[in-house]
Amino acid sequence: MIDDAGFIPDGTVTSARGFTAGAVATGIKQHSRYKLDLGMLFSKAPCATAGVFTISRMKASPVLLCKDMLPIDNIRGVVINSGCANAATGKQGLLDATEMQSAAAKSLGIAADAMLVASTGVIGQRLPLEAIKDGLKRIGLTAGGGHWLAEAITTTDTVTKEVAVKSDDFIIGGIAKGSGMIHPQLGTMLCFLATDVKISTHCLTAALKKAAAISFNMVTIDGDASPNDMVIIMANGLAANKTIEQNTPQADVFQAALNRVCIFLARAIATDGEGASKLIEVTVNGGASIRDARIAARTIAGSSLVKTAIHGSDPNWGRIIAAAGRSGADFIESRLDLSICGIHIIEKGSLMPYDKKAASEKLKNDEVSIELNLNLGEAAATAWGCDLSEKYVTINSQYTT
Amino acid sequence: MIDDAGFIPDGTVTSARGFTAGAVATGIKQHSRYKLDLGMLFSKAPCATAGVFTISRMKASPVLLCKDMLPIDNIRGVVINSGCANAATGKQGLLDATEMQSAAAKSLGIAADAMLVASTGVIGQRLPLEAIKDGLKRIGLTAGGGHWLAEAITTTDTVTKEVAVKSDDFIIGGIAKGSGMIHPQLGTMLCFLATDVKISTHCLTAALKKAAAISFNMVTIDGDASPNDMVIIMANGLAANKTIEQNTPQADVFQAALNRVCIFLARAIATDGEGASKLIEVTVNGGASIRDARIAARTIAGSSLVKTAIHGSDPNWGRIIAAAGRSGADFIESRLDLSICGIHIIEKGSLMPYDKKAASEKLKNDEVSIELNLNLGEAAATAWGCDLSEKYVTINSQYTT
Repeated sequence: MIDDAGFIPDGTVTSARGFTAGAVATGIKQHSRYKLDLGMLFSKAPCATAGVFTISRMKASPVLLCKDMLPIDNIRGVVINSGCANAATGKQGLLDATEMQSAAAKSLGIAADAMLVASTGVIGQRLPLEAIKDGLKRIGLTAGGGHWLAEAITTTDTVTKEVAVKSDDFIIGGIAKGSGMIHPQLGTMLCFLATDVKISTHCLTAALKKAAAISFNMVTIDGDASPNDMVIIMANGLAANKTIEQNTPQADVFQAALNRVCIFLARAIATDGEGASKLIEVTVNGGASIRDARIAARTIAGSSLVKTAIHGSDPNWGRIIAAAGRSGADFIESRLDLSICGIHIIEKGSLMPYDKKAASEKLKNDEVSIELNLNLGEAAATAWGCDLSEKYVTINSQYTT
Repeated sequence: MIDDAGFIPDGTVTSARGFTAGAVATGIKQHSRYKLDLGMLFSKAPCATAGVFTISRMKASPVLLCKDMLPIDNIRGVVINSGCANAATGKQGLLDATEMQSAAAKSLGIAADAMLVASTGVIGQRLPLEAIKDGLKRIGLTAGGGHWLAEAITTTDTVTKEVAVKSDDFIIGGIAKGSGMIHPQLGTMLCFLATDVKISTHCLTAALKKAAAISFNMVTIDGDASPNDMVIIMANGLAANKTIEQNTPQADVFQAALNRVCIFLARAIATDGEGASKLIEVTVNGGASIRDARIAARTIAGSSLVKTAIHGSDPNWGRIIAAAGRSGADFIESRLDLSICGIHIIEKGSLMPYDKKAASEKLKNDEVSIELNLNLGEAAATAWGCDLSEKYVTINSQYTT
């Protein structure tokens, strides 16, 4: 049942050995009191743990708390709530996050400093600590609990994002939520990865940074980074492998598996972008540098004009190359090759005769691919985004205080 | 009739001494053949002339041509067409722009190298040179012709943008078009300024750069810079003043007047943003550096989430400070002061009790002001943008090829 790329059917964050999870509804979300909104991920063995966090100067309290703790090798669990971001809450917010951490650790019978904390939801409101403490007592942890946890961390998401990949002796499972800072005052992207691989904290940290750079950091929905963005990976070492160290063939195997997991979740986030009807995959080849390839791909995927054109199934190549031109990447117009959905449109900077009607038809698919070759070097990058629809505007403007 | 700030009623690009203009319809715009689309600005005396141009690596042919010529002190005229951007047209495009320049110069009886060329419109199509040459023969130049030229350079603009300011002995007039790369495959912002002041080319160049930095460069509509952006200023010296040199009190007077003209046109561009119903003015004070103040102001004005919130008249302060937080500017949450439409909402990072209903009412005005104090230094900057409406998406996605 495991396919070539190692994807496990129905895989989730608890697919690797030794991980359990659970979730409950505590009423944090004012408009949907009976939705799951609080959960925990737990490992029966201490985990090498690494994280990457929002680059915004405005950081939510749980981000400040976890960023300060990681990387470390003794983590046992994470407690997560949705509905309240605990952001823009100042010193009180940090005290609240710490109290949530302690209460969760106590409920699991572990030390407070073995517990991480994450939040997502409305900015500028305090955590409802009593409801959270009460909820913690009701959480039952199970091996299949990853699915409930995946549900509990969602806010405006229309689907859960879950995956697990098996590679050699180990499994990497993961869940994610969000897509851009998509909802009024809601914090954004959270991702929790859990693996049974035995790996040094140092190597795990490096692998997570590399994987995040080519997956989550290449997703753009609306350009609004959130104070709550956080990706955490926990490795409990219950697989039988020899501890993986950096610059070894085993590290490469682990990196490849981790990349697959992160790219799967990143694409799932872009696909579920607010108001989105299509996934846009932009591949830039021939960049003079990897930075160039990345900013060109991200700028195209993030352009309001490209996004609206694709929403209207319009093969509007002028907007695509104009976006690349202003991205800051090295760019020589007369070298460009461009294909949209596999249809060759620009060659060496010149417009080719192409079937506009066929292109427009292909653009009606759920997934749209744009391939631009800058022909200036060897660097390549892929970015993911979604179309921009009237629905995005409606959702984000009709929320009134 | 001239107000305190020196604005001349019904002022336009031909308000200063010695400038005439005219425009005709040649049928370049496929869907509106009888709209003005070709015009010229002419000075009876040679002009000190400076320009600022798009920073996109993708530059339209007329931009390449003019950028190469300026600054210089012998310019007599500019020929401008709308409907075709002459961008993404390669070497042929440059030949076409040169031919348009020569034909226009010939029709005025001046040397080709005294003529500038500008285009705006669809990307990727060749200029219809025969129609342009035919049109040039029909252009009649008059002192009131600036109004027709202002009309002729518009594309999706719903109003013309014209202004003239009198200061001491001189007048600066100007016209502009566009607002972001607002229409499918259309080039963006053009601005032509004409003054009778006597000024050194060196001083004029410096003044234009400064004025553009605090006006046009602080306008953000949809983040999509165009290959055609161009601001040109021509100074024919017909005013009786002593030649203005840099670092003199007279240079300051000229700078102040030029700033007024450019800010007026920049605000007019933002107000006419595609699908926009409101002008958003974002002022950031207390920046650690001028760069910080500018990127914070621009990031707030350009945030899709801020723009949609204001479209919905929602005083969504969380989105505003989150945008400032991710802008890259130095930022300490506990120092922030924030007002929306004059209503104090955040003080030293903490939410104040405020009347949400009153704030929401004020946000229904045509102009919305956001004032953020970072309280980290002395630098200040103002940016202009507009709300993001369903109409923007509809207009930009329903254009089909």
